[in-house]
Amino acid sequence: MGTGFDFEIIEHDERARAGIFHTPHGDLLTPVFAPVGTQGTVKSVTPAQLEQLDASLVLANTYHLYLRPGDKVIADLGGLHQFMHWDKPLLTDSGGFQVFSLAESRRISDDGVTFKSHIDGSTHELTPEKSIAIQENLGADIIMAFDECGSPYDIAKNETAMLRTHHWVERCITVKTRSDQALFGIIQGGIYPELRIRSAEFLASLDLPGYAIGGLSVGETKKETLSTLELVDQYLPETKPRYLMGVGSPEDLVRGVQRGVDIFDCVLPTRLARHHAAMTRTGRINIANARYSTEKSPLDENCSCYTCKNFSSAYIRHLVLAKEMLAATLLSIHNLHMLITLMNDIRQAIMNHQFDHFATNFLENWESAL
Amino acid sequence: MGTGFDFEIIEHDERARAGIFHTPHGDLLTPVFAPVGTQGTVKSVTPAQLEQLDASLVLANTYHLYLRPGDKVIADLGGLHQFMHWDKPLLTDSGGFQVFSLAESRRISDDGVTFKSHIDGSTHELTPEKSIAIQENLGADIIMAFDECGSPYDIAKNETAMLRTHHWVERCITVKTRSDQALFGIIQGGIYPELRIRSAEFLASLDLPGYAIGGLSVGETKKETLSTLELVDQYLPETKPRYLMGVGSPEDLVRGVQRGVDIFDCVLPTRLARHHAAMTRTGRINIANARYSTEKSPLDENCSCYTCKNFSSAYIRHLVLAKEMLAATLLSIHNLHMLITLMNDIRQAIMNHQFDHFATNFLENWESAL
Repeated sequence: MGTGFDFEIIEHDERARAGIFHTPHGDLLTPVFAPVGTQGTVKSVTPAQLEQLDASLVLANTYHLYLRPGDKVIADLGGLHQFMHWDKPLLTDSGGFQVFSLAESRRISDDGVTFKSHIDGSTHELTPEKSIAIQENLGADIIMAFDECGSPYDIAKNETAMLRTHHWVERCITVKTRSDQALFGIIQGGIYPELRIRSAEFLASLDLPGYAIGGLSVGETKKETLSTLELVDQYLPETKPRYLMGVGSPEDLVRGVQRGVDIFDCVLPTRLARHHAAMTRTGRINIANARYSTEKSPLDENCSCYTCKNFSSAYIRHLVLAKEMLAATLLSIHNLHMLITLMNDIRQAIMNHQFDHFATNFLENWESAL
Repeated sequence: MGTGFDFEIIEHDERARAGIFHTPHGDLLTPVFAPVGTQGTVKSVTPAQLEQLDASLVLANTYHLYLRPGDKVIADLGGLHQFMHWDKPLLTDSGGFQVFSLAESRRISDDGVTFKSHIDGSTHELTPEKSIAIQENLGADIIMAFDECGSPYDIAKNETAMLRTHHWVERCITVKTRSDQALFGIIQGGIYPELRIRSAEFLASLDLPGYAIGGLSVGETKKETLSTLELVDQYLPETKPRYLMGVGSPEDLVRGVQRGVDIFDCVLPTRLARHHAAMTRTGRINIANARYSTEKSPLDENCSCYTCKNFSSAYIRHLVLAKEMLAATLLSIHNLHMLITLMNDIRQAIMNHQFDHFATNFLENWESAL
């Protein structure tokens, strides 16, 4: 499958990699963290603010945009980039995960999934073919194969889901028409090494432009997550980007990069912001806490974001208590800046062959704060 | 009362005036519209976005900030400018109007007003002395005398409220200590010309740096509002700025300037934004309307704001239906831009001695759209 989506690895440091992934909307410097814009907007911030934060990749959700406003509406308006006014790389998921986690009364078969919309109860079907058609209407740079994500601890169900996922990725490849979109396959297999190896080997054989590790952070232990990452790292082609879906706490980003992951996405920074939490490099703080009521210092003394350069913790606490929208905006800006600069620092550490030292330091500071 | 708050009238055009009001935080070019930041934030926008909109004066509410987070907290954090990160001119009201409109079980005497907080039911007292002390803690450039606003149609109650307001402004002048704040007096008198004349003459005799016309837009007819403005215009000193409190619809701004008003404030642009309405020069549109579901054009084809330059009406409607915060932000940016550029155009028309023509044109387009 020729794609034109070249991935150059600039530097290795142990298993960590610093790379460049070329897309039609610009280069992604990896490792990279993608803010999530579920409904075509990263919650509480404008695209101009995302630009100022130096965000480079944004994820949007196929399930949500298919249901509302509809992928055809977005196509008629020039595609998702133009619709949400984001000129840099975009990634859409396949819709599969949301169907399993959000939709009502879903019914799964080898053909696809029938489900009821969480918005109005209307009935819909998603299949590999339909997921690709929707994602082609949306027009993101990176699109995902339609997959089934099993519960982590049932080997039989995980094998079924994995085999289905393998058949479905082949159907996705068959119907895909746009050459300006990179189709990533998704490895399944729960916590079972033998399934994960089979899934990684099968997908590697398809020579896709990138690979996601699915079915993690869905209930398994942290140790199981990390050992699964270490395992699939050995079976995935070195020369393709690896994407750990839905992962975004600072310590998980560091541990993921240590295990060869290049791309991450998560709602965490903007969701925490709406729940009054600020992320720092030593842990989270809840700014609604009374201890901040007269606090002159910013959320994080060492942070250079718009929020920390200009506003006291006391002001942000006031906004939270007064239920002002600006609270979520200022906290989102800070949390996104925190993760984006963390990834920049990780990349720099890899370039300097100091990532192991960086990671050890980071995790020690992080854990001492918990 | 020497103040250093010079008001230069650069140009007259009939009763309309183009001026410059000098304040410690910069010059206000008048006529000017002030966005409202009730709780120390103009709802849904950042100070950086307000700067980009070229807003020059922001109003904050003494009642709200006194109750939460408290004026002493704000003073300890460097004052309201620093607290909310707004380096340009600020205006605070006296708290009187909010006590009458928001607080519970208020009791009024010649000394002041006792009331219960709308937040937690706690009992508080506001007097002229306390209002000035709070406003000195907040530190706005323009502060307002504590006044009583009567209901428009009761002559006896209006006379009582007016006389109280006159006694209270004298007490405000007596206790005021900061020379970097301009104290504006407030004319009362309901719809009764004899009261309005007495009030304007009394306040003019105090030689204050500016005058507000209070007790309007509180239930009287539009005709009564306008004739009151025309009346007080004749009794107020030409050389001082006049402020029409709480007024902000486009047609009222034009009609106010026609009658000699220099300063306006209103929650309208940001409140309408939270209710899905966009202001244009020909009227309001409700962007949630189904007719916008596939509309490629912006809110207003002739608008140069961030929202209109970058987003389709269909996208903004989608954000509204999806209950995304960005809807309020983009609509607020548009509505604020609309009023701020309207005021700039009004000022330019006055400078060119074409304001009468401008106003006639504007009001014809506006009314034809209703």
